[in-house]
Amino acid sequence: MPKIDLSQVPVRTGSSYPAKYSDRMAGRSGQGVGDAGGLTQFGANLVRLAPGALSSLRHWHEKQDEFLIVTEGALTLIDDTGETPLVPGDCCAFPANDGNGHHIVNRSDRDGVFLVVGTRTETETGWYSDIDMKVEVAGGKMRFTRKDGSDVG
Amino acid sequence: MPKIDLSQVPVRTGSSYPAKYSDRMAGRSGQGVGDAGGLTQFGANLVRLAPGALSSLRHWHEKQDEFLIVTEGALTLIDDTGETPLVPGDCCAFPANDGNGHHIVNRSDRDGVFLVVGTRTETETGWYSDIDMKVEVAGGKMRFTRKDGSDVG
Repeated sequence: MPKIDLSQVPVRTGSSYPAKYSDRMAGRSGQGVGDAGGLTQFGANLVRLAPGALSSLRHWHEKQDEFLIVTEGALTLIDDTGETPLVPGDCCAFPANDGNGHHIVNRSDRDGVFLVVGTRTETETGWYSDIDMKVEVAGGKMRFTRKDGSDVG
Repeated sequence: MPKIDLSQVPVRTGSSYPAKYSDRMAGRSGQGVGDAGGLTQFGANLVRLAPGALSSLRHWHEKQDEFLIVTEGALTLIDDTGETPLVPGDCCAFPANDGNGHHIVNRSDRDGVFLVVGTRTETETGWYSDIDMKVEVAGGKMRFTRKDGSDVG
């Protein structure tokens, strides 16, 4: 059955970031709807942001294209150009290696939801725009370091 | 600017199917929002279906994962398992080579809209479930034939 039964898709909360940054992800939850439907070539995730929550720390990808569409609520895109309000139906595209760190924040007083799609690649490096951190992904594992490769601490 | 200005994205109508099938696509329009945002690794298209319109002839892909989320209206998924109603927020996944021909139809009395995402590959073959046709894609061109490779006529 191609339709995804959202009530059966696990809702992930918490953070994969190092401890010093992990509390910044409070209020974010996600459902891996692409994985639930058996897809492997790209990830498709429904992300819910409570008031005040962030989608991620502001970042960009070296290899992977990323795309999102807002489906509920009023959200704000923050990137190198500033802040852009988003409402349902609004779409954003983040080409691989564009160097434009981005994230979505919820400054409204009710939940906001978006679908985000990102290519899957064997390896990937992501760079965080506002802090001294990068992530290297290989073998399905994430390794966070400072930008010079030293321990995040 | 990552946010896509939908008013600036061309609205494509018509059909790329052979003449004998092309009139079946009346009432469908699409916007290539991923291309508009500079993405190359997957396609992301906003598709609008007027009452009575079809997303495509019912088909499945050999190589490309496909995913959709409904954003407006009331639509119907038709696949090998039957018919499934879809409302905004509903998601469907179609893994590559699953052999389950699918399309979306609008049986309501107002427009419906969905976002569909599909991997980009150098070559692809798609198979149509209800008619004697396949499509081979290479070099950005589509070649429609009967399933035995002969002319569609």
